[in-house]
Amino acid sequence: MRAAMATAEVDDDVLGVDPTAFRLESEVAEIMGKEAGLFVLSGTMGNLVSVLVHCDTRGSEVILGDNSHIHIYENGGIATIGGVHPRPVKNNEDGTMDIDSIEAAIRDPRGELLYPTTRLICLENSHANSGGRCLSVEYTDRVGELAKKHGLKLHVDGARIFNASVALGVPVNRLVQAADSVSVCLSKGLGAPVGSVIVGSKSFIAKARILRKTLGGGTRQVGLICAAAFVALKENVEKLEGDHRKAKILAEGLNQIKGLKVDVAAVETNIINVDIVDSKFTAEQLHKHLEEHGVLVMSKGQFRSVFSIVNHPFRFARKWTKLEFVARTK
Amino acid sequence: MRAAMATAEVDDDVLGVDPTAFRLESEVAEIMGKEAGLFVLSGTMGNLVSVLVHCDTRGSEVILGDNSHIHIYENGGIATIGGVHPRPVKNNEDGTMDIDSIEAAIRDPRGELLYPTTRLICLENSHANSGGRCLSVEYTDRVGELAKKHGLKLHVDGARIFNASVALGVPVNRLVQAADSVSVCLSKGLGAPVGSVIVGSKSFIAKARILRKTLGGGTRQVGLICAAAFVALKENVEKLEGDHRKAKILAEGLNQIKGLKVDVAAVETNIINVDIVDSKFTAEQLHKHLEEHGVLVMSKGQFRSVFSIVNHPFRFARKWTKLEFVARTK
Amino acid sequence: MRAAMATAEVDDDVLGVDPTAFRLESEVAEIMGKEAGLFVLSGTMGNLVSVLVHCDTRGSEVILGDNSHIHIYENGGIATIGGVHPRPVKNNEDGTMDIDSIEAAIRDPRGELLYPTTRLICLENSHANSGGRCLSVEYTDRVGELAKKHGLKLHVDGARIFNASVALGVPVNRLVQAADSVSVCLSKGLGAPVGSVIVGSKSFIAKARILRKTLGGGTRQVGLICAAAFVALKENVEKLEGDHRKAKILAEGLNQIKGLKVDVAAVETNIINVDIVDSKFTAEQLHKHLEEHGVLVMSKGQFRSVFSIVNHPFRFARKWTKLEFVARTK
Amino acid sequence: MRAAMATAEVDDDVLGVDPTAFRLESEVAEIMGKEAGLFVLSGTMGNLVSVLVHCDTRGSEVILGDNSHIHIYENGGIATIGGVHPRPVKNNEDGTMDIDSIEAAIRDPRGELLYPTTRLICLENSHANSGGRCLSVEYTDRVGELAKKHGLKLHVDGARIFNASVALGVPVNRLVQAADSVSVCLSKGLGAPVGSVIVGSKSFIAKARILRKTLGGGTRQVGLICAAAFVALKENVEKLEGDHRKAKILAEGLNQIKGLKVDVAAVETNIINVDIVDSKFTAEQLHKHLEEHGVLVMSKGQFRSVFSIVNHPFRFARKWTKLEFVARTK
Repeated sequence: MRAAMATAEVDDDVLGVDPTAFRLESEVAEIMGKEAGLFVLSGTMGNLVSVLVHCDTRGSEVILGDNSHIHIYENGGIATIGGVHPRPVKNNEDGTMDIDSIEAAIRDPRGELLYPTTRLICLENSHANSGGRCLSVEYTDRVGELAKKHGLKLHVDGARIFNASVALGVPVNRLVQAADSVSVCLSKGLGAPVGSVIVGSKSFIAKARILRKTLGGGTRQVGLICAAAFVALKENVEKLEGDHRKAKILAEGLNQIKGLKVDVAAVETNIINVDIVDSKFTAEQLHKHLEEHGVLVMSKGQFRSVFSIVNHPFRFARKWTKLEFVARTK
Repeated sequence: MRAAMATAEVDDDVLGVDPTAFRLESEVAEIMGKEAGLFVLSGTMGNLVSVLVHCDTRGSEVILGDNSHIHIYENGGIATIGGVHPRPVKNNEDGTMDIDSIEAAIRDPRGELLYPTTRLICLENSHANSGGRCLSVEYTDRVGELAKKHGLKLHVDGARIFNASVALGVPVNRLVQAADSVSVCLSKGLGAPVGSVIVGSKSFIAKARILRKTLGGGTRQVGLICAAAFVALKENVEKLEGDHRKAKILAEGLNQIKGLKVDVAAVETNIINVDIVDSKFTAEQLHKHLEEHGVLVMSKGQFRSVFSIVNHPFRFARKWTKLEFVARTK
Repeated sequence: MRAAMATAEVDDDVLGVDPTAFRLESEVAEIMGKEAGLFVLSGTMGNLVSVLVHCDTRGSEVILGDNSHIHIYENGGIATIGGVHPRPVKNNEDGTMDIDSIEAAIRDPRGELLYPTTRLICLENSHANSGGRCLSVEYTDRVGELAKKHGLKLHVDGARIFNASVALGVPVNRLVQAADSVSVCLSKGLGAPVGSVIVGSKSFIAKARILRKTLGGGTRQVGLICAAAFVALKENVEKLEGDHRKAKILAEGLNQIKGLKVDVAAVETNIINVDIVDSKFTAEQLHKHLEEHGVLVMSKGQFRSVFSIVNHPFRFARKWTKLEFVARTK
Repeated sequence: MRAAMATAEVDDDVLGVDPTAFRLESEVAEIMGKEAGLFVLSGTMGNLVSVLVHCDTRGSEVILGDNSHIHIYENGGIATIGGVHPRPVKNNEDGTMDIDSIEAAIRDPRGELLYPTTRLICLENSHANSGGRCLSVEYTDRVGELAKKHGLKLHVDGARIFNASVALGVPVNRLVQAADSVSVCLSKGLGAPVGSVIVGSKSFIAKARILRKTLGGGTRQVGLICAAAFVALKENVEKLEGDHRKAKILAEGLNQIKGLKVDVAAVETNIINVDIVDSKFTAEQLHKHLEEHGVLVMSKGQFRSVFSIVNHPFRFARKWTKLEFVARTK
């Protein structure tokens, strides 16, 4: 990956003429089955740009999961930076939202004096906070139909979309066929040092390029980074299946430890939620204990009175095996 | 009320020197037990100004009911105009949110890189979408303690706070004692032609006055309107008890009609939710039928597939009896 | 005016069914030669709503005078509330901006990666900060042509448009013929207690109605206020000529006082700028002196080291003669 | 530079633990004489984050040059994304704003009902649109004193601050001593592939880190990029003097070409403004001509009827000589 960076051909990507960035964007767009792509510096930027482009008119509302990454972990940027009103709908344990609940949350256009205008539905696949569970292609298609019926757009936060594709055994372009835009992260499971790519129609990407510049995400010789991301894309998707297998093994092992509880059946991809059911110790202590034994973990401030630990990136095995692991004091 | 308007002493309220506006603001502040008050043109403006003053820093989040007036019926203004990120918590049938759920929604300050900053909790009393049910003083106090513990502010959307006070038999100043700010509507149950008053500390009101001006809500000889609102405040609070009694009678009567169902016990104030349980007719038809018989009702676009009728203002009896009434096709 | 209020027929204007509001809106629209009108609570709200409706897409820019009311006196609301980027162009002494300067400020669409999108030009007629000077119909038409050529909208802040019309001897509908929207104040020179009306196309007004609601400017029985404004509109336009005559007389008188200097030729309407050229006293002292002699004046914080006094409303003669008067320490 | 990237030690910079990013940030902070630094992906992001951190309260206004990069070339992001109201002051030909004009633009706090609150002054050094001219340390100090006197912050857009430092012969930390924050670009004259660093107090940088994350500018193993930027910082500052010498030579040569005019005395750093004074050809044609002869240039949409060409990056000599060059049709 570093070798690729060292030899990458680059130019000024603010002007859209960096050949390596262009190659990466085109490649991801083709893989995802969309017209065009745009390199962004992070998954958060990918989602922010996507939501703001779909909701470019004042008074827009977006329907999204109440436990989704966008609603919980992205600083509320769509509202604080973009002025978009979020309308969260309850996320089920498997990361879905009930179709009926989504439909009920769509604003009646006759109430425009009282309501913002619903413009977008966001899904997340795989769904991080539900422990990496996958949305099926049937579910995604149904939400896509609902969106179409009401004249809405569908965005998929696909930070881990390759994990979902591999776990479901569904080609990734088929999995996001119903989506108007997808944000694909290359730096999580795929191991690129930096970056995501958003994909969609040509006009969507043209607007996204402008907004990326407004946010300060337009960069010059970014091909150096894109070269590494390209390697990640080409070489590491095939490693995800191994990650999932190892996650399953780890989950089973953890579940046999007294005081820990893991819903092994719910471990569909590379994320393991571990509940600490022994009242004598806490997630914080587990965290410390793992670190002392050379297992790097990372704590993440979370909900009140639920201290949690996420190891991210957690080099459980070697190099590109990346498991995410959340310990929760019960 | 018109007579009061015709003789009101007025001056320029943009400058804060209209004596009639000042008298109304002072009176409401005193009744509510707060330091100062500010006349605003509508309940929506009152809530918008209050939330934005409490959340005056970029990256603020507000916890509020997922079925609250602010979240559902105010155009998403706090986000689209104010850039404040809403964090809705499930409203129970009685208009409360579980204390635990509120606490769980407060952001961990250690997660400031990922999270917006929680600054405000909003309650609504009585709670319109739950059918006008009242939040008890104990509940409000507990939420106030929670807010204090976490350094948050508490705003009460008191559009119908006098209804709650009368129904609960609790002095209104005691009922909102825990609140940092209250928005009080004088034009709903109290029957003033236009206007609300927000109350809070002197520094809160000073900031609110500036923001009201920014929104274009600073007006000149507004004392003319305030004079009418003053009459409403002085003469009509005592009529609310009669409204509630009549609402109860009406609810019982409606419940005896085949095809309609009313949870009579849930009618605590002046709002009646009527479920149409006969599949042969709809809320829309009831609406039409009532109009043909001289009962003025008003339809309000609502959730998908639930057409609803709200009569607001509904002059069920005469003059200042104002019942609100929602028919819902089941 | 109070009598009109006492007998006004009213209904709920949030729903757009208040007959007196509707009558006022229709009347102003017809007078201004536009399709439709909307009552707003203040001139600031009228300008804010108009700019935001024309600039409803994220990334919009508005060209306006660097000494205009919108840029200087409206709290920066178009940016702080609406996220619209202002591009001020130098105001000449007569309130115009050079046509060439306006054209130079229009963004090149090829630079969309670097530039916001110009969507609107704002004029102000008469122009308050230039001492109430009037923009000619020829000038307004030329700016209108420029806007059309570049696909932009033209908004006229017509807080004092009737003063301009009377002073220029041009019918007011002709004067604003080139404008897509006009904000007309009824509470300044015309003496209504509260309110402005914005006019424009039907689709503009439909969007403006929604935005007014978002800002909290939707009010219920607002016809009471509209009734007074209607009287102002019908009875007081003809009094403006007298105001202008009196302003001229006052200006000449003031100019003969040692230590004061007035550019009498520049007094075209009802505003008089008085420069205090005697270094021994200040605008602040003049202010005090006038008050002690029963002339009510109002001070307004202004530019650094230029303390100024504006009497607004200044009841120089009686009732509806309203002169505005700015004393500036030189 | 690529070698440095290939061997850089990296970690997760979203968490602030990437050692190479930290080393770069610390180094730039020390060089600039400030407490702390933060890597950002672009100069636009650096300015956006800086302005928004200083103006974190709703209703903030910033005084900046009407010909400054922030006002002209950054998509109006401070308003469209940040809701900050810009108050542009005329830029003189040398990139300064008159001190008196700055002071006159500071809002009187007594006018808070009408005015936004001035919180920040922005300078740009060297000043790109004035042809790379430098603000002296005396001038910067005076603006700093003015800011302090009025309780304002001072931000310096130092995209080319090293060019100014070298040209003026003033140590860069002395040059920005009066500034509360500086945005330093490493990818323009210094030739790093990507990135800027903003510097300021520890509390400023702590807030900036959060806002960078909100914008999606938090990245993971960004040390790879920082390693290259570090090399640029260490090796290329000393090359700037040569750039300036070559720019002077080029300017003199161009000025001797019939039809071109260059104000050679105004070429203080690495930017050359070339006016095309022969009406028979245009900047566009010059652009084409240069390209045909192997001189890479880049056109940039600009002001109406002034087509201009900027070659950026223009490899006039070899490798790290970077001149910027603007041809303007007169």
